[in-house]
Amino acid sequence: MSADSPYIIAPNPADPRLTQTVSGVDERGEPVETSVTVERALTIYLNAQEIVTQMTIGDYPEYLALGYLLNQNMVRPEDVITGIDYDEDLKVVVVRTQRETNFEDKLKKRTQTSGCAQGTTFGDLMEALDDVRLPQAELRTSWLYRLTHAVNTTPSLYLEAGAIHGCVLARADRPLVYMEDVGRHNAVDKIAGWMFLEGESGADKIFYTTGRLTSEMVIKTVRMGIPILVSRSGFTAWGVELARKLGLTLIGRARGKRFVALSGAERIVYDQDLAYVAEESAKNRRKGSREGGDE
Amino acid sequence: MSADSPYIIAPNPADPRLTQTVSGVDERGEPVETSVTVERALTIYLNAQEIVTQMTIGDYPEYLALGYLLNQNMVRPEDVITGIDYDEDLKVVVVRTQRETNFEDKLKKRTQTSGCAQGTTFGDLMEALDDVRLPQAELRTSWLYRLTHAVNTTPSLYLEAGAIHGCVLARADRPLVYMEDVGRHNAVDKIAGWMFLEGESGADKIFYTTGRLTSEMVIKTVRMGIPILVSRSGFTAWGVELARKLGLTLIGRARGKRFVALSGAERIVYDQDLAYVAEESAKNRRKGSREGGDE
Repeated sequence: MSADSPYIIAPNPADPRLTQTVSGVDERGEPVETSVTVERALTIYLNAQEIVTQMTIGDYPEYLALGYLLNQNMVRPEDVITGIDYDEDLKVVVVRTQRETNFEDKLKKRTQTSGCAQGTTFGDLMEALDDVRLPQAELRTSWLYRLTHAVNTTPSLYLEAGAIHGCVLARADRPLVYMEDVGRHNAVDKIAGWMFLEGESGADKIFYTTGRLTSEMVIKTVRMGIPILVSRSGFTAWGVELARKLGLTLIGRARGKRFVALSGAERIVYDQDLAYVAEESAKNRRKGSREGGDE
Repeated sequence: MSADSPYIIAPNPADPRLTQTVSGVDERGEPVETSVTVERALTIYLNAQEIVTQMTIGDYPEYLALGYLLNQNMVRPEDVITGIDYDEDLKVVVVRTQRETNFEDKLKKRTQTSGCAQGTTFGDLMEALDDVRLPQAELRTSWLYRLTHAVNTTPSLYLEAGAIHGCVLARADRPLVYMEDVGRHNAVDKIAGWMFLEGESGADKIFYTTGRLTSEMVIKTVRMGIPILVSRSGFTAWGVELARKLGLTLIGRARGKRFVALSGAERIVYDQDLAYVAEESAKNRRKGSREGGDE
């Protein structure tokens, strides 16, 4: 990463472990070589208990495991993490907590939430949100445009190989941590794990996702204590309803100079002269990238 | 649906239960009204046992429930279905089989597969695929272009409200069943349920998805006995590997005249003169639709 990059963690599309070149044919029957995203099994343990096996690109297994457990409410914000051990050969990561844990019962019954479910026990998550009060914050439209432009022009696996989701943790107009994964929730969970280990507060942050604004994305953003969620994609009705209930600023379809806010618009400060914002250029438009996008 | 529609089942974007109009503000701070996709909880029972609660748009609960159970290998192709009861008030659907079932143990441990996991027990699914031999079949490129054009110009919730995935079951160049849902696997499962109840074979079919070609999409297509899987989106490495192992024709990034085949290219017959195929027009390009796409 160059010295003037805004990122603390940025995608590394050059990492040879994350993509693979495969041979095929094109529409003329001509041989082509193309780059595809790798997915690997990773089994997550919490203390002595096997919790789940996830398919992931595998770049930050410790953050993914911890973030997953946090977002499932199996590890709590007040928990003391005594260790996170990753065994690359076994493809296992073990998160150890000071508190004893037992989720035998919880693992028996799960609600598949929308848009790429992770098997969240939904009632539990909602309960954990009862105490959440998102902070006052502002979102200047000048930040929003600079931020989305920065994200869209960041070299990524998405631009390299497609078939991947991206999430970005930002402060004002600066993208800080940009994670990608084959499942969008893995990308969110990796950021949640990073925030926990770094002791980063969500209060002054903005969360950006390439994916849809489903109820589950809303819940995870609120659990991270982040007051503003932005996406280039669309909304679901329940996502909007939850965002309104929880006081989250929810901005979708953010492309070029356009966006729509369906919740928490009072945090928006319209300080950008729209005459100076470019529409998405074909070159930077993630959707129109060489390898095609994902839906 | 018009008399000359090729569809047996097509999306019904005019169904008022599937979308909701919500108010917000745009990038100028001006009030806007916009249409968003509805998601509802649906709890699936297999006989007396509660299996899972899914978030769905809710249009075909019986097909969804049966297809989910089939794709989880909880209902087997040889099973006799004695009834499917949907209670709209309780938001519960019960699938009854002649054979007694008990999945207490299976529900305890799940593998989250990539790209929008459903908690599939992966080993079980792979085992069930050991006996699968996909049939010989051909995919004429003339069919492929007519099919993708027909799908892209079909009125849909995607075009209406975004934040949704679509799957299409087709024969040759004719789209037969087009299902949409907030989770892409729900759309697949609804088609699987329809095929089972209608006694439709997969052997002469083509499966089209708006979503990524992950391992799970490959597995579900093969379980439906369909030899050809097409997407406008990209590939994952494991999806490609599985498709090759299972003899599935896998075609991705199918947009305008372009596509890439990374498995089973021997089924492709190049009968289309490419000079007569249009690039995707901005009007029909799903990605560029008014409401924005999903990733």
